[in-house]
Amino acid sequence: MIVMDNKWDRLVTPEDVNEAWIRIRPWVRQTPAMTCSALNERCQARVVLKCENLQKVGAFKFRGAINAVLQLSDEQRIAGVVTHSSGNHAQALALAARLAGTKATIVMPNNAPAIKREATLGYGATIVPCEPNQAARESAAARVVTESGATLIHPYDHPHVVAGQGTAAVELLDEVAGLDTLLAPVGGGGLLSGTALAAQLRKPTLRVVGCEPLGADDAWRSLYGGVRVTAHTPKTISDGLLTVLGDIAFITLSTLGVPIVRVTDEETVAAMRFVWERAKIIIEPSSAVPVAALMFHRDEIGGNHIGIILSGGNVDLTAFFETLRHRSEDLTKPG
Amino acid sequence: MIVMDNKWDRLVTPEDVNEAWIRIRPWVRQTPAMTCSALNERCQARVVLKCENLQKVGAFKFRGAINAVLQLSDEQRIAGVVTHSSGNHAQALALAARLAGTKATIVMPNNAPAIKREATLGYGATIVPCEPNQAARESAAARVVTESGATLIHPYDHPHVVAGQGTAAVELLDEVAGLDTLLAPVGGGGLLSGTALAAQLRKPTLRVVGCEPLGADDAWRSLYGGVRVTAHTPKTISDGLLTVLGDIAFITLSTLGVPIVRVTDEETVAAMRFVWERAKIIIEPSSAVPVAALMFHRDEIGGNHIGIILSGGNVDLTAFFETLRHRSEDLTKPG
Repeated sequence: MIVMDNKWDRLVTPEDVNEAWIRIRPWVRQTPAMTCSALNERCQARVVLKCENLQKVGAFKFRGAINAVLQLSDEQRIAGVVTHSSGNHAQALALAARLAGTKATIVMPNNAPAIKREATLGYGATIVPCEPNQAARESAAARVVTESGATLIHPYDHPHVVAGQGTAAVELLDEVAGLDTLLAPVGGGGLLSGTALAAQLRKPTLRVVGCEPLGADDAWRSLYGGVRVTAHTPKTISDGLLTVLGDIAFITLSTLGVPIVRVTDEETVAAMRFVWERAKIIIEPSSAVPVAALMFHRDEIGGNHIGIILSGGNVDLTAFFETLRHRSEDLTKPG
Repeated sequence: MIVMDNKWDRLVTPEDVNEAWIRIRPWVRQTPAMTCSALNERCQARVVLKCENLQKVGAFKFRGAINAVLQLSDEQRIAGVVTHSSGNHAQALALAARLAGTKATIVMPNNAPAIKREATLGYGATIVPCEPNQAARESAAARVVTESGATLIHPYDHPHVVAGQGTAAVELLDEVAGLDTLLAPVGGGGLLSGTALAAQLRKPTLRVVGCEPLGADDAWRSLYGGVRVTAHTPKTISDGLLTVLGDIAFITLSTLGVPIVRVTDEETVAAMRFVWERAKIIIEPSSAVPVAALMFHRDEIGGNHIGIILSGGNVDLTAFFETLRHRSEDLTKPG
């Protein structure tokens, strides 16, 4: 086993995913595996959608967060947990901390949308605002660790988080027999590496494929170049996939030889619309990335019976509902 | 039994719903009964959502249409079916006809959205355009009947359609034990009267409540006034509920004493947003009407374990996705 650094002393293994699954099973929602005949027809395949958009907090992130929090020692639980995130991991860790009887501090850029701040506060977390850049986020989180003794739970580059994210695939593989291919989006790589480990655990012949926005393709460049890209300037509407690939994910995905398929934002938007209109479920752009890979890069994906991990469903709907509200006001105006 | 007119010789009965359920079971999707903890918390009740937005063609309307088409005689099947609708019933009848090996002609106003025309054509139906008013629609449909001998399948005021719509509630009551209250929207009343008959069949103690937009409250006025309102000028964003209550629904709902709760469009939009954001499923405004009744008129609804028939999920998402597409273009512009 490769010693990675002082945060952990070994790689994440399929057995870690198995233990995570047993550990978190009573805490997570076992999300449905959904089919959509229009998608099957469109892609000429049998497609199964693992609906992590219906997971608690609306994203798979809850799995990794609860798996990490449930492994805190008594001492750590008293001191609490901390992370820096303005996205799904913030809410996931806030809820996981509340359920596990500890407290969460979330370092969040001071320009984060009010709705995300409120949701995080709603789960009982404390928010520490910071300047909206990576250095400020990391130093604010480090300060919380120093001052309160809280445990840092990284959004993806943390072994317990990676193992937890893999449990979505375990559930899917246990429910649906005969899948030959499994797609997941890749940003920091927690979900994709967890998924690849889950396949090792349950079905080593399964082909796991990562799907990435062309405008944030550091995983593709890292894995094909053999050196982890550590900085990039992402440009994509898939706001859950802006982060660079983590260390754990890089080593895990390299070792297992997981291929990456890239899609344009235009393809992502079309795939997202297809799922909203035909499957009638809300998915966020990050979730639409693997759907786009299947719809527009069918030959690169291969396979016949294909699972897709729909990572989450947190989308800002304000503009849509403002328009609808105005239409209803117009309708009820006298005259 | 009351003889109603020459279109049918008796009222629709709970046994008709039972027979419909047995008849159409192999043809319909058995839609999930979903829960949402945020909705439970918000309404202080255990709420179960019967997801007819996930039904074929995205609405419960497929149930009534397939039930009607499966009861055609051989002669009728050869001559085909006809209806006038620009909404979910058009697509439902088109698909039902295709599956049952007959042909459908849909009279559709010439200003109907292209997307609805295309969907209906996609199911293999023929479209006959007409001027966008009720008289033109009815006379165009009558002309098709005269010329081709096709059978008219009314969108709601048809006994087989009413019986078919009741099967959603049968499925829900068979899956979820212990419901004390069941909510459904009311427009023409096919779904609500079918639902009330399903309750008679499976659980006569169940309280069935109709939910209606305040700006299209002819069912409320008809049932409380004791005389069916036959014309009104509806103003509501709930475009599935614009039609006046049918004869069958009026008699059935009067006989069974089904109460009606009314909601404003503002409440409907808020309920729709709540379901999109928290349950992560797409529902159309008509489906949000009973959710709004529960959220904003809790005391009128009563009960503790409450089912809601989510009638459909067909919403025009063009504006939303245009905005998203522009955002993705902005992101990928050079510079």
